[in-house]
Amino acid sequence: MTALDHTHDVNAHSWLESANAAGADFPIQNLPFSVFRRRGTQQAFRGGVAIGDQVVDLAALAATPALEGAALQAARAAAQPALNDFFALGPAAWRALRHALFALLKDGAAPGQLALLRDCLVPQREAEHSVPARIGDYTDFYTSLDHALNCTRLLLAEGDVTPNFRWLPIAYHGRASTIGVSGQTFRRPMGQVMPPGAKAPLYQACARMDYELELGIWIGQGNAAGEPIAMAQAEQHVFGICLLNDWSARDIQVWEMAPLGPFLAKNFATTISPWIVTMDALAPYRTAWPRPATDPQPLDYLDSPANREAGAIDIRLEVWLESQRARQEGRGPARLSSTSFRHQYWSVAQMVAHHTMGGCALNPGDLLGSGTISGPGPGEAGALLELASAGRNPVPLGDGDERGFLEDGDAVLLRGWCEKPGAARIGFGESRGTVLAALR
Amino acid sequence: MTALDHTHDVNAHSWLESANAAGADFPIQNLPFSVFRRRGTQQAFRGGVAIGDQVVDLAALAATPALEGAALQAARAAAQPALNDFFALGPAAWRALRHALFALLKDGAAPGQLALLRDCLVPQREAEHSVPARIGDYTDFYTSLDHALNCTRLLLAEGDVTPNFRWLPIAYHGRASTIGVSGQTFRRPMGQVMPPGAKAPLYQACARMDYELELGIWIGQGNAAGEPIAMAQAEQHVFGICLLNDWSARDIQVWEMAPLGPFLAKNFATTISPWIVTMDALAPYRTAWPRPATDPQPLDYLDSPANREAGAIDIRLEVWLESQRARQEGRGPARLSSTSFRHQYWSVAQMVAHHTMGGCALNPGDLLGSGTISGPGPGEAGALLELASAGRNPVPLGDGDERGFLEDGDAVLLRGWCEKPGAARIGFGESRGTVLAALR
Repeated sequence: MTALDHTHDVNAHSWLESANAAGADFPIQNLPFSVFRRRGTQQAFRGGVAIGDQVVDLAALAATPALEGAALQAARAAAQPALNDFFALGPAAWRALRHALFALLKDGAAPGQLALLRDCLVPQREAEHSVPARIGDYTDFYTSLDHALNCTRLLLAEGDVTPNFRWLPIAYHGRASTIGVSGQTFRRPMGQVMPPGAKAPLYQACARMDYELELGIWIGQGNAAGEPIAMAQAEQHVFGICLLNDWSARDIQVWEMAPLGPFLAKNFATTISPWIVTMDALAPYRTAWPRPATDPQPLDYLDSPANREAGAIDIRLEVWLESQRARQEGRGPARLSSTSFRHQYWSVAQMVAHHTMGGCALNPGDLLGSGTISGPGPGEAGALLELASAGRNPVPLGDGDERGFLEDGDAVLLRGWCEKPGAARIGFGESRGTVLAALR
Repeated sequence: MTALDHTHDVNAHSWLESANAAGADFPIQNLPFSVFRRRGTQQAFRGGVAIGDQVVDLAALAATPALEGAALQAARAAAQPALNDFFALGPAAWRALRHALFALLKDGAAPGQLALLRDCLVPQREAEHSVPARIGDYTDFYTSLDHALNCTRLLLAEGDVTPNFRWLPIAYHGRASTIGVSGQTFRRPMGQVMPPGAKAPLYQACARMDYELELGIWIGQGNAAGEPIAMAQAEQHVFGICLLNDWSARDIQVWEMAPLGPFLAKNFATTISPWIVTMDALAPYRTAWPRPATDPQPLDYLDSPANREAGAIDIRLEVWLESQRARQEGRGPARLSSTSFRHQYWSVAQMVAHHTMGGCALNPGDLLGSGTISGPGPGEAGALLELASAGRNPVPLGDGDERGFLEDGDAVLLRGWCEKPGAARIGFGESRGTVLAALR
């Protein structure tokens, strides 16, 4: 677990006023990374760090005398069109750049330094983003007990989760080629579905389109094949976290998934937020790992004192839906649910340790989906399937419309942030994706 | 389906005598691709084509005046350390290079040309190989009915395969980061297993290590997200086929795989042969797709006249096991089974069409595993699980040893070839992988 330092000081302010606005996602304590370029240009994509309503262009900054030593080396690696080389440098390099940026951006920075940095700022409204790293492999976990219980009851008509759920963080491999950054649009997939009682499946457009609220966990330094990562080191291999929407075609899923798991139901699109909030920035919001004493306790390879004490992270999350009609009529999106990542049954460190336990190699830029994040209360479910009871109880959108599943033109927005007394509020920005009509 | 042309002529011979030997894997009708360098050097890896006991160094050949036009452009793309750019050029470019190499290698080639080519040959015994392309995504299918029936009975104690099996080619996403080329060694994985009747799972080394005989299908040109590949075009997106061993930890698999499929049981290692036999080279060995008339017939998006007529490929396959003891005592490997890919319930074209039907994007260098290839007869099973009835009937190795599952030091060798009257015999070379002791 990262120790707190001066970059977490709630009283720190930036000379850039937009960074100090109440409720802003990107104060000086955050400093999340993305890959971007000026919208509408043919510029090479390059790494950037959010501050207020601006992006620090790391390619521009690395060409100034503002940085030196490890911070300069890190900025050069992060100036590329993909952050893989930067990820591979490891926590000391990431922290050197964070500390240098904090010093350059904070109120009271030397005027010469400040002037250098000001020339490297690009307004966020003029930026377009790409997927921030070449994703070698994408893995999707299934680590919310509340989500698993809801799905088991709704999709499989079973009373409890499978016996392995409380013993290991279940996961399956996902599709890297269709991961897109916020703003992604995709066609509703065609697929095979088997209506109840039918003799043969139908080929038709998905009629049960759903989203899944997840977090994306970016692997920093990897491990060699055959060399597992122990719990004590697991978080040192994680660079940071973004928002992730695991779009799911429920009718295709239930027909195809036995016995080897979801395939076409999930591989047509996955949407991530452009900004990666670093594990360093998340340090103030750690909380105790919430495993009830009456539940099975983790095997040794999934256990550590640090994980028990602070394995969870209180990341507040919301899902919003903007229908085509709401968009056309100039109304904003409707909030469908809100919850926190702190309820998750398995932690980030446990996902990394389990993934590598049998010898699987992780590489810089690999992405882990947390699995759908559903909290224990009503209105805390991370998928429409759960909120609307598999279509039986459509969710009202507040304007007369309601949704059992998603309709064409629906945009789903994910938002996330952390806040607590004595610490700054830091945000994840937004992940937005839109369902288009099927290609028939 | 590729038309037959002069490169398939059974009477064609090479001026390189080793290419004309009876039973050789690499006659002039084959011309498979790999990526290689001279063993023990720091040379950059580069594309190569097998002929007899030699490799044509495509980087060297592209620097001579022996090639021109489309063949030269293709050779330059294939001279790189990964074949992705070559794959992306498409069938016309692949064929131009095949035809040019055939002309240069055949008996009667012009002496000047022959001399140029001779200078580009590297003996195969002096070559080392790498994985031939950057694998963006790896997908593993499950398309042998005989294998599925055997596994369903042995692992799940059910009488028939899941109802979807006969309607769609089942698949799941696999792990690209641990795919290695022939010669791969890996540690037996540690994992969670749940003994029958136990209250809690154990953390231990896999006790039921198995192999799976598969073919690896290399995607050439890809498709854009949201734009499915129709059956009529599907094979034009396939560059060629190699041998693939999907190592499987059966005890880990049965505990972890409900409900989302295999994960750690499969992601520690996958071994492929270095040589990719092109779809062009495989053209003479096509046979009718073997779907019985009494079984469900494919939905339209999985059907085409060409697939019914010649969707299957008669690739003969064998699995051999070389124990550490046999190796130490200088004995050769023992043959465990032999079968053919022609029995497979779903074809290569159907795998590609189904994979992209919902909009999933394939990219050049993506790899599809065929799924375990088990034939209908005794001794035709593609996994030890099936041959030894889940360990109950160990398979004799002929030297007093027997195997229920694999032991440390066991090397598994896959071999494949095609032959039929009126056509040449062409081979796939070998895929060899070795199980090492677990890291405890």
